Amino acid sequence: MALRSGRHFLQIPGPTNVPDRVLRAIDSATIDHRGPDFAQLGLGVIEGLKRVFKTKSDVVIYPASGTGAWEAALVNTLSAGDRVLMFETGQFASLWQRMATELGLVAEFVPGDWRHGVDPNLVESKLREDRQHQIKAVCVVHNETSTGVTSRIGEIRAAIDRARHPSLFMVDTISSLASIDYRHDEWDVDVTVGGSQKGLMLPPGLSFNALSAKAREAAKQATLPRVYWRWEDMIRANQSGFFPYTPATNLLYGLREALKMLLEEEGLDNVFARHARLAEATRRAVRAWGLEILCERFDMSLGTGLGKVQGKVFRIGHLGDFNELMLAGTLCGVEMGLAAGGVPFKQGGVQKALDYLAASS
Amino acid sequence: MALRSGRHFLQIPGPTNVPDRVLRAIDSATIDHRGPDFAQLGLGVIEGLKRVFKTKSDVVIYPASGTGAWEAALVNTLSAGDRVLMFETGQFASLWQRMATELGLVAEFVPGDWRHGVDPNLVESKLREDRQHQIKAVCVVHNETSTGVTSRIGEIRAAIDRARHPSLFMVDTISSLASIDYRHDEWDVDVTVGGSQKGLMLPPGLSFNALSAKAREAAKQATLPRVYWRWEDMIRANQSGFFPYTPATNLLYGLREALKMLLEEEGLDNVFARHARLAEATRRAVRAWGLEILCERFDMSLGTGLGKVQGKVFRIGHLGDFNELMLAGTLCGVEMGLAAGGVPFKQGGVQKALDYLAASS
Amino acid sequence: MALRSGRHFLQIPGPTNVPDRVLRAIDSATIDHRGPDFAQLGLGVIEGLKRVFKTKSDVVIYPASGTGAWEAALVNTLSAGDRVLMFETGQFASLWQRMATELGLVAEFVPGDWRHGVDPNLVESKLREDRQHQIKAVCVVHNETSTGVTSRIGEIRAAIDRARHPSLFMVDTISSLASIDYRHDEWDVDVTVGGSQKGLMLPPGLSFNALSAKAREAAKQATLPRVYWRWEDMIRANQSGFFPYTPATNLLYGLREALKMLLEEEGLDNVFARHARLAEATRRAVRAWGLEILCERFDMSLGTGLGKVQGKVFRIGHLGDFNELMLAGTLCGVEMGLAAGGVPFKQGGVQKALDYLAASS
Amino acid sequence: MALRSGRHFLQIPGPTNVPDRVLRAIDSATIDHRGPDFAQLGLGVIEGLKRVFKTKSDVVIYPASGTGAWEAALVNTLSAGDRVLMFETGQFASLWQRMATELGLVAEFVPGDWRHGVDPNLVESKLREDRQHQIKAVCVVHNETSTGVTSRIGEIRAAIDRARHPSLFMVDTISSLASIDYRHDEWDVDVTVGGSQKGLMLPPGLSFNALSAKAREAAKQATLPRVYWRWEDMIRANQSGFFPYTPATNLLYGLREALKMLLEEEGLDNVFARHARLAEATRRAVRAWGLEILCERFDMSLGTGLGKVQGKVFRIGHLGDFNELMLAGTLCGVEMGLAAGGVPFKQGGVQKALDYLAASS
Repeated sequence: MALRSGRHFLQIPGPTNVPDRVLRAIDSATIDHRGPDFAQLGLGVIEGLKRVFKTKSDVVIYPASGTGAWEAALVNTLSAGDRVLMFETGQFASLWQRMATELGLVAEFVPGDWRHGVDPNLVESKLREDRQHQIKAVCVVHNETSTGVTSRIGEIRAAIDRARHPSLFMVDTISSLASIDYRHDEWDVDVTVGGSQKGLMLPPGLSFNALSAKAREAAKQATLPRVYWRWEDMIRANQSGFFPYTPATNLLYGLREALKMLLEEEGLDNVFARHARLAEATRRAVRAWGLEILCERFDMSLGTGLGKVQGKVFRIGHLGDFNELMLAGTLCGVEMGLAAGGVPFKQGGVQKALDYLAASS
Repeated sequence: MALRSGRHFLQIPGPTNVPDRVLRAIDSATIDHRGPDFAQLGLGVIEGLKRVFKTKSDVVIYPASGTGAWEAALVNTLSAGDRVLMFETGQFASLWQRMATELGLVAEFVPGDWRHGVDPNLVESKLREDRQHQIKAVCVVHNETSTGVTSRIGEIRAAIDRARHPSLFMVDTISSLASIDYRHDEWDVDVTVGGSQKGLMLPPGLSFNALSAKAREAAKQATLPRVYWRWEDMIRANQSGFFPYTPATNLLYGLREALKMLLEEEGLDNVFARHARLAEATRRAVRAWGLEILCERFDMSLGTGLGKVQGKVFRIGHLGDFNELMLAGTLCGVEMGLAAGGVPFKQGGVQKALDYLAASS
Repeated sequence: MALRSGRHFLQIPGPTNVPDRVLRAIDSATIDHRGPDFAQLGLGVIEGLKRVFKTKSDVVIYPASGTGAWEAALVNTLSAGDRVLMFETGQFASLWQRMATELGLVAEFVPGDWRHGVDPNLVESKLREDRQHQIKAVCVVHNETSTGVTSRIGEIRAAIDRARHPSLFMVDTISSLASIDYRHDEWDVDVTVGGSQKGLMLPPGLSFNALSAKAREAAKQATLPRVYWRWEDMIRANQSGFFPYTPATNLLYGLREALKMLLEEEGLDNVFARHARLAEATRRAVRAWGLEILCERFDMSLGTGLGKVQGKVFRIGHLGDFNELMLAGTLCGVEMGLAAGGVPFKQGGVQKALDYLAASS
Repeated sequence: MALRSGRHFLQIPGPTNVPDRVLRAIDSATIDHRGPDFAQLGLGVIEGLKRVFKTKSDVVIYPASGTGAWEAALVNTLSAGDRVLMFETGQFASLWQRMATELGLVAEFVPGDWRHGVDPNLVESKLREDRQHQIKAVCVVHNETSTGVTSRIGEIRAAIDRARHPSLFMVDTISSLASIDYRHDEWDVDVTVGGSQKGLMLPPGLSFNALSAKAREAAKQATLPRVYWRWEDMIRANQSGFFPYTPATNLLYGLREALKMLLEEEGLDNVFARHARLAEATRRAVRAWGLEILCERFDMSLGTGLGKVQGKVFRIGHLGDFNELMLAGTLCGVEMGLAAGGVPFKQGGVQKALDYLAASS
């Protein structure tokens, strides 16, 4: 293979660039997952994750990618034939809906145009219509990796409350966690689904469920079969920092390092501000190029088209371990790519982004 | 924390010592799992794994630990209420049986003394008794991590054939793969379950199913719900080296390096011979100490007691990336530990092991 | 310390960005420098270096930074009071001259404006004037790290030949080796000085002398005291791949990997072409900004001012493991920095560089 | 190359086993050696080294191996023709004496049997004989890497004082620093020479001089030519954490990590106690084997024969990052090796070492 000189710009919307420090932490000798050093590791990362999810409740960690954490959310709380309410905000919402169906649930899938987040009023009216409370869960994707569409979780929570509906509320934060502000407890979410390979700056291979007391209560009645994903075994073993089966120890080393960077060094609020600023610079470049931004104002990542928008859009990933000059290099690459590909566009996008970055620094 | 100088001797029966080369391979930048470099990686590791399992059929790789691959074996092939035949050869066989029950299967669990492998004759008679072919799967643990008991898979296969029973045959090789000879195709196994953190010398976080055509056929009828574990999506995406959801890319880098070491550099036969020799040296030390070896002749790993034998035995792990001097240091540590712990034993075990190693080198 | 998110752009003219592969190679267990594995390493890197210097003669490797290799060149070949001819092409030429003086040599230092390379005609006339052949060495810096000024070594060689002067010819290639074409044998250079931390993409800590037979002959008469730097001990031990004293083993691992990348994967000609193209793009950006390029056409690295030009110039490093998008990010950073610093400039430099890169790809 | 499974036991007397943490620290991106992060690194490692040398005076760090630091000690303080007093305690003392001669010094080399350290009374009488104070330096190797012979530096200091001789006192601690107690200030040493690759647990490539005010004063008069090794440039630049020429930045990262382990985590006194205990266990094994220990009581490392004792002895390295089980494995390897090589010996050495380790734990 011919060598490609210099650093690769991995600006897909995930996996994101893993910081060297995190890679080096992963590159440490595996330890006994039944011993005292492990217990300290286990307790530490669970505690740190709670701060990221902004919850005082339980967070469980799976040696699995994000799809596994979706499945865990559903099989722990629901029974065959249960109804769930889902919203078509993009490709990943569609995949989650397909999973629900294949697990034997009855998913009502509210159609969408892939350009707007979930409408809280629509949630309210759907739930009000469900007089007999057959809907057991409302499932929303916080930020759509495929489109950059972000839904307002706090407003959806308020809508559910207004409808006085007992449904569980499940949120996928795979591409928003640790890049857009998220508040599991304040927004009273019952199951939050997260993954390692976006804002947490880790390689893929870990995923998460943050729970509420109501979700754990629902798990007692739920009859979908489950062992690997079962929360109760996890939570019991986690009390002392251990896991019910062999954990992905080395990825947990990486998680410990990433949490240190996010919580203790940069600080979550600075992380959010950095992402917002780089996102705004990106949008200004796109507009100056005369291209259309697919999604509404809350977008976090543009991107290459998945599903419905395949061949029609591309996404400019700017999640995770990222800074001004990496973005600048990326946008220059996009501008050269547009020219090389014969796409009609106006020059000057990079300049607009630089102007914004310079003005906002 | 006080520093512990020098290298830790991780001689538990797994996770095993991960070679520096494998750790360093994992410590590489994550790449796009939809791009051409990834396809090459994916195709390569699947091909290598087939050589380790000794199969020309399909091998699927889960971003999950071994327990997940157990669950995958069961949910892909069986339906609620199906009967499975299992054998109590130790702690892990017991856990697999508990999982089967919790997934809604009816597990017949043949009791055992944790000192002997599965008796092929017993398999034959159990299957002959099952005139109506209600038993859908015979599940055996090849090597019991908890006791070192090894079952003879080829002879069990012959017993199933003699009984002319159509049952599926499932084998757990989590602690035997790449350390004891194993032959998926020759022994006509339908589902082989494997994990990354023992003979494959990787951190935990990957697990495997090797399949037969009969297993894939059974999957078409099986009704236990499954999405994350579903073979067909995996196999379809794997054709081009990809995965149906985000794979644990960095662990796959490690797998590629470990396969290179096992298949191209040391060679599987040499790997098996090395393990057999170090195991024999270990047994000689144990006998010279006047201690009892828990299991019969085919043992691969002694160990600290789990389950039934908790507090009664300890295990001397010697799997994976291991050599004479590491074993010697380990046995010296055991001998010093026996003395320190006031355990009655005869000195001289280390000497016997050294004599054997010197004579057999 | 507050975390700085994302990758640092180390665009100083050296040390350059060390590729991850090289860092990972360095991060390997140190081996016995008297054993057979080391011999293989030693022979391999010496052989590879010869290809980089384009010589069939000897190359010696010092566990030292570049300043050490300068000293080695002088103390191996010269005696107290010897005259040397040096040229003020920038800061490093000035430092080398100072070193010569401090070692007891008599350095004639031809003044320069830091914007032009050495004039071959001037070399010829200086040598012709030296009827009694008191000048023992002509010392030239190939590429001035401080200014980007490149001197034409082949033409200077021709000038020495025309003057029929027996002087040794010494060339410093610390910031040109493996980024601009260099030909030790073809240009009949007697001592070439090189370092690890620029085009060779290594951390600092290794430096080199490539020799001629004439240089080794001169060493027999030279009386400046030397032990650490003595060539003959090196060359003798190097025959079998060893060193006369403990070598910097781990940096040699990195050198082996870097040589593999340069020679076997990218290829030296491609390396040179890449550097030339990125340099041209940089110059176009600088001109578009309305700034002045300090040096003449052969420049390789602009830079922050050292010595004479301190506070007046800055240098844009683009040596080593570098590509289009890294350059683009760097130039964007320069443009934002010019704005932030209130430096009068015209926007559009980045655009010019992108246009050139797109057109020349 | 055939794969050698498991971890290599690098039990030569140096380079020693580099801890993974130190390797991983070295495996970090090189930074600008003129920037503020570097200044912090530079100041930190110099401060830590002072604690290791037990000095409040200056310590300089060379990007060079130990031989360079020997040369630095001599060329900074002495002039051609100066007399130095040296003692033949082993191979490295002999090499240092040869270097002195080759640098133009007149070395009086007191013969020795390679089994005993320097006799303080002999130092005193030699200095008393030198009525005209022609001896400018007394040079002693603290611990001889080639034989394990250790000299009593404090007693030699007292002998010099008793002789009321103004000579400088230089000590080579390359294989003793950070493994045997050493006190630069208390013992009033003028130049202490150290290296990175033994007790400091680093790869080779860094070496050190610890100075006294008297040594710096001597440097003002000394006329041996020097630039790379010149202390004054180093000390001036070091004030702000920088270096007069490019330092070996990545090895300095490793030094920072190693100093943290030695000073803050294990503690120097514990480091010394650990080395003493493992050394005693080693000697007991050797005696039980019926072999002869080459050196007197203060030995630290046995070893394979260099120089005079080539082919007659071997050395069992146990310096640096080392613990009981690594020693046990090493001794088992020696015992198997003696048997394999047909060397007459008595079995039981390993047992004696284990007994001692168990009793002393």
